[in-house]
Amino acid sequence: MSRERVTDDAVVYEFGPEMDAAVTVTDGATLTVETRDSLEGAVRTDDDVMSEVPEEVNAATGPIAVEGAGPGDVLGVAIEAIRPAEDRGRAVTIPEFGLLQDDERIDHPASLVTPVEGDTLSVGEFDVPLDPCIGTIGVATAGDTHSTLVPHDHGGNLDTTLLRAGNTVYFPVNRPGGMLAMGDCKAAMADGEACGTGAEIATEIDCTVTVESGDLSRPLVETDDSWAFLASAETMEEACRIAYRDAIDALAEDADLSLTDAYMLASLVADLEISQVVDPLVTVRAVVPKRYLTNPLD
Amino acid sequence: MSRERVTDDAVVYEFGPEMDAAVTVTDGATLTVETRDSLEGAVRTDDDVMSEVPEEVNAATGPIAVEGAGPGDVLGVAIEAIRPAEDRGRAVTIPEFGLLQDDERIDHPASLVTPVEGDTLSVGEFDVPLDPCIGTIGVATAGDTHSTLVPHDHGGNLDTTLLRAGNTVYFPVNRPGGMLAMGDCKAAMADGEACGTGAEIATEIDCTVTVESGDLSRPLVETDDSWAFLASAETMEEACRIAYRDAIDALAEDADLSLTDAYMLASLVADLEISQVVDPLVTVRAVVPKRYLTNPLD
Repeated sequence: MSRERVTDDAVVYEFGPEMDAAVTVTDGATLTVETRDSLEGAVRTDDDVMSEVPEEVNAATGPIAVEGAGPGDVLGVAIEAIRPAEDRGRAVTIPEFGLLQDDERIDHPASLVTPVEGDTLSVGEFDVPLDPCIGTIGVATAGDTHSTLVPHDHGGNLDTTLLRAGNTVYFPVNRPGGMLAMGDCKAAMADGEACGTGAEIATEIDCTVTVESGDLSRPLVETDDSWAFLASAETMEEACRIAYRDAIDALAEDADLSLTDAYMLASLVADLEISQVVDPLVTVRAVVPKRYLTNPLD
Repeated sequence: MSRERVTDDAVVYEFGPEMDAAVTVTDGATLTVETRDSLEGAVRTDDDVMSEVPEEVNAATGPIAVEGAGPGDVLGVAIEAIRPAEDRGRAVTIPEFGLLQDDERIDHPASLVTPVEGDTLSVGEFDVPLDPCIGTIGVATAGDTHSTLVPHDHGGNLDTTLLRAGNTVYFPVNRPGGMLAMGDCKAAMADGEACGTGAEIATEIDCTVTVESGDLSRPLVETDDSWAFLASAETMEEACRIAYRDAIDALAEDADLSLTDAYMLASLVADLEISQVVDPLVTVRAVVPKRYLTNPLD
């Protein structure tokens, strides 16, 4: 079966409850989704700097309606490959943006272009392994409208390194068709995305979309050996509480444990990890190994 | 050279500027340090519950004075092995303690005893791999006095899974002899230590202590392939800022980069990770691979 190409001609800058499909695909469709770089070509050299966060940023290709997806379903996106579609990425600092925005020793704005050479990025004198991830991916919301700069229960600007080839991300379907959109990829990014960006780059994403049954409130990522419950909130402490409650609820139900025992077990085996600390809401994840949790979607 | 045994007869419950050595060892001494479980035997069965955090908790064996260590030096503790010294660990919840202390669906207090059987812990129906780490380890402070429940720049209750066999932790020496103390080990613990404990257990720690030169403000952990800069603060956001500043300062100096370029490089390669979110101050770490940072102590 050949992959269906979803071009980056149609993009969104908001996730809301009412989104018009740019394309409609079948349940189980295999896609290649083109994505623009988050800054849309504004930074080609180190001299191209961003004096402010653009009003339209993190263009997300779509929306992609998936036939048969309806409210209460779960939309699965199996990420098979993320390929750079240009010869360079770029990290930037922007005034009033990023973890150390108040550190006067650091230039804001500044840009660092990172040429792609084979499987590596050149970052100054260093070769950094190419390890692409998706920054922004989500579905139509249940009610609120969020800019693509914001992560929330619908997905959005999750900036989570686990959104890489080989993993599957699941979203709660709020609206008919789901209305999937994705973009804002990184050629490389560390957990935290401290300066506010990874190496932002245009890409092609190979993925397969499926409609699943299940009970899900927020984005969930499946890796080879674990389930990662993502949560975004105003503070990291609150995001940790939300993600951990989701994780131990699933653990208790799946393993037929009391919630109290699930909580104590999780404290031994379920890591709290940082996705990003720089977006308007921060994102963390509670990661439960599959040896303790077979299927949180059941 | 035979290891010198440091028994758990002498313990401290505070790290302060004035600490009297329980034992004095040479630079380069190889030690076996006995540690009590953090709850000092109070929980032997699931029926033994803690209605409040004990006033004296996290007994740290020591202080161990290291000959030749003086203010401005760095004390290295190479952790070679952590062996359980009893047949069980225990996780507990305690009222007004832990990430989900306000969740009324969870019992506070509760205890879950975890028998040790070979290389595994029995946690209910599950076998959890034994993977011990040190919860509390530190040195005399520069001025303030902190209970062993508190993590800060001197170390203390860092609750960091990287404090495991094979890794080396470094502390700034504030007072003559350094005055090292350690305890509060876990048979297993996940990043975050969500319920407020790992599987608390008495242990024997094999380690080697060395006096190093270097410029260090806070605890630093060396693993096979990375340097982890630890920071503790009132909020996770503030702890992230402190740890990341330390990391990029070291990166800039070591690689002769501008601080701005070091910040953007770090955003691609240096992960922000959670150590614990439950102690009076929270602890995070900024982890820089050695391929980008040769030696932050130079």
